[in-house]
Amino acid sequence: MADKANVARRMAAIQPFYVMALLARARELESEGRDIVHMEIGEPDFETPAPITAAGIEALRQGHTQYTPARGLLALRQAISVFYKTEHNVVVDPERIIITPGSSGALQLLMSTLINPGDQLLMADPGYPCNRNFVRLVEGEPFSIPVAAETGYQLTHSHLQQYWSSRSRAVLVASPSNPTGTLIASDEMAQMAQFVQQRGGHLLVDEIYHGLVYGTRAETALAISDELFVINSFSKYFGMTGWRLGWLVAPLVYVPALERVAQNIFLSASTPAQYAALAAFLPETRLILEERRCIFQQRRDYLLPALRQLGFDIPVTPEGAFYLYANCSRFSDDSEEFCRRLLEEAGVAVTPGKDFGHQDPSRHLRFAYTTSLERLRLGVARIEQFLTTL
Amino acid sequence: MADKANVARRMAAIQPFYVMALLARARELESEGRDIVHMEIGEPDFETPAPITAAGIEALRQGHTQYTPARGLLALRQAISVFYKTEHNVVVDPERIIITPGSSGALQLLMSTLINPGDQLLMADPGYPCNRNFVRLVEGEPFSIPVAAETGYQLTHSHLQQYWSSRSRAVLVASPSNPTGTLIASDEMAQMAQFVQQRGGHLLVDEIYHGLVYGTRAETALAISDELFVINSFSKYFGMTGWRLGWLVAPLVYVPALERVAQNIFLSASTPAQYAALAAFLPETRLILEERRCIFQQRRDYLLPALRQLGFDIPVTPEGAFYLYANCSRFSDDSEEFCRRLLEEAGVAVTPGKDFGHQDPSRHLRFAYTTSLERLRLGVARIEQFLTTL
Repeated sequence: MADKANVARRMAAIQPFYVMALLARARELESEGRDIVHMEIGEPDFETPAPITAAGIEALRQGHTQYTPARGLLALRQAISVFYKTEHNVVVDPERIIITPGSSGALQLLMSTLINPGDQLLMADPGYPCNRNFVRLVEGEPFSIPVAAETGYQLTHSHLQQYWSSRSRAVLVASPSNPTGTLIASDEMAQMAQFVQQRGGHLLVDEIYHGLVYGTRAETALAISDELFVINSFSKYFGMTGWRLGWLVAPLVYVPALERVAQNIFLSASTPAQYAALAAFLPETRLILEERRCIFQQRRDYLLPALRQLGFDIPVTPEGAFYLYANCSRFSDDSEEFCRRLLEEAGVAVTPGKDFGHQDPSRHLRFAYTTSLERLRLGVARIEQFLTTL
Repeated sequence: MADKANVARRMAAIQPFYVMALLARARELESEGRDIVHMEIGEPDFETPAPITAAGIEALRQGHTQYTPARGLLALRQAISVFYKTEHNVVVDPERIIITPGSSGALQLLMSTLINPGDQLLMADPGYPCNRNFVRLVEGEPFSIPVAAETGYQLTHSHLQQYWSSRSRAVLVASPSNPTGTLIASDEMAQMAQFVQQRGGHLLVDEIYHGLVYGTRAETALAISDELFVINSFSKYFGMTGWRLGWLVAPLVYVPALERVAQNIFLSASTPAQYAALAAFLPETRLILEERRCIFQQRRDYLLPALRQLGFDIPVTPEGAFYLYANCSRFSDDSEEFCRRLLEEAGVAVTPGKDFGHQDPSRHLRFAYTTSLERLRLGVARIEQFLTTL
């Protein structure tokens, strides 16, 4: 008992993220004086936009340090509603919006409210690794569906026809996706929404990378149906990672149950963060965010052909987020070892496929373009040199 | 489907808190011009102490807006470790400390990491209502043990001998307790710790009201054993409710599993809040907190005899937190209706027993002294008048 942890059975399935160990090793090397190009980190390299931070500071000056209602500040829910109208021309009743501690909080609310023990949640593999574990915590079953380049690494209506069973309870999709950066077309989303609804299930749509889309426009799934759930976040596009703030849009009839869970597990989201986020929709903030989006696009437009030229296979052009998911089998069938050596020998940190699922992870890598163009160029040069040593 | 929510089975057991509806009604009456004395709110009526807020503002100015490690800032974990040494003369390795989004986050980590489906978590009734629901979310079973004045409304070693079974996995106690404000004596805690450890179970100790103790000193359970888990918070004593920040102290061997869950469900606690909390242990902050503690004590010292004199039965003198749990059966056997009328007719909001468990709730009320002495006097005068109308 004293020397061995007596943990719940589900913990056996909840593995540490390899990227954390990799990041720790990268920091260790840096502390020894090595220069490391970070292409492993899933966080924008920008501080929170100044108007948002200023609003946070002002909120603290005014003493806004007590709990808000569990669903969040009405003013913020209204601002999000206006955002959907002006940005997407979709009417979303503020009563359907719940403010959460990051999109992580939204996912927890959904799993707790919707998933019974043994219920299956269908999701794409590769995908965001925490999703599987959110389901496990409520004793549901993550059901991973292998996806490939043919469908843009996304679930489709056909996948649902093939894999939906009596044990299926919900489908979780992400558009844009982590780690592949790909989108789901509106007509495909509409077909999936209809399919799931006809079976009395739930469609959960992760739109947390929604503002970071390049060369096209992403439509919110809320334009398609009022019966689906949308998860969003102030972290990525709005640059507020460390504040821990996101939101959830739910069909109105589910709001009371979601609110009850929120009252129990959060009480409320961070109050200073909520006041700060009121400034996220200001024109001056949006200008900054649009500049940043263009910078991310420039990085993608550099990195994608550069990696392809080196021999990494990226069959689908990622249109969003800040990730490239590459097949490295020309160089290695052991992406974890490849990443280890790339870090140790060349000073470049990237994430191996194993963090994203069980679909051929040993032949895949995720490159994040969350560092400057200059650093990306240096990274690519180092990788090129490294590949000649293999 | 469209007009009825299709939620998970566990939601049937997760009830809304009556106090939320009561608070909403109180706000409604206020918006109509009524003056309401609030004795229902479980949140200090003080803003965050100025040095903490100033540290938060400074952190934002310096751009500390990105994720921290999942376990939290090392500097904050070290500051908490020093606090245990100077305040309690207990050595707590910073490696055993995990920073969480409120103590709610700490409870979630514990349930997810320790409790299997069907496992029982033993707890006192009356108690903090969310505790039951944290267990339900991971499909464990909250096992409520009725406690009474004889044991200071706390679990004892004898209770554990009586109720521990092969299905028991852990015991959760709170000292001071919500709603009763009572403490657990060190020798009783030590006996419970030994009992649970001998059976391979876990003792979880909620110390979130720990700094708010009057006329005595509360020892941390960490002085008793390294094998138990302690939950604490910056919310109540440190006055940081809306920032959502707490911490967990665990046996070292459990830290990797807890960290894995934290990586999945939080990523990290709020970064600005963590930097702000570094100022919570400064001498100038502690002076403010000590002043506030004295104010709470004055309120208790006024309210306790005043309510007893009116005829409410409060058999055990509460030594901590900011709650009085009173038997109202001299006036009513329907505390919910009593609360409703007290609010509507006398303009005083208090919480009925039903929010705290199943142990004779209809004959109990919780009074919170989270408002000024002047307002408490007004509240008592109104209650006195109201009682004459019954």
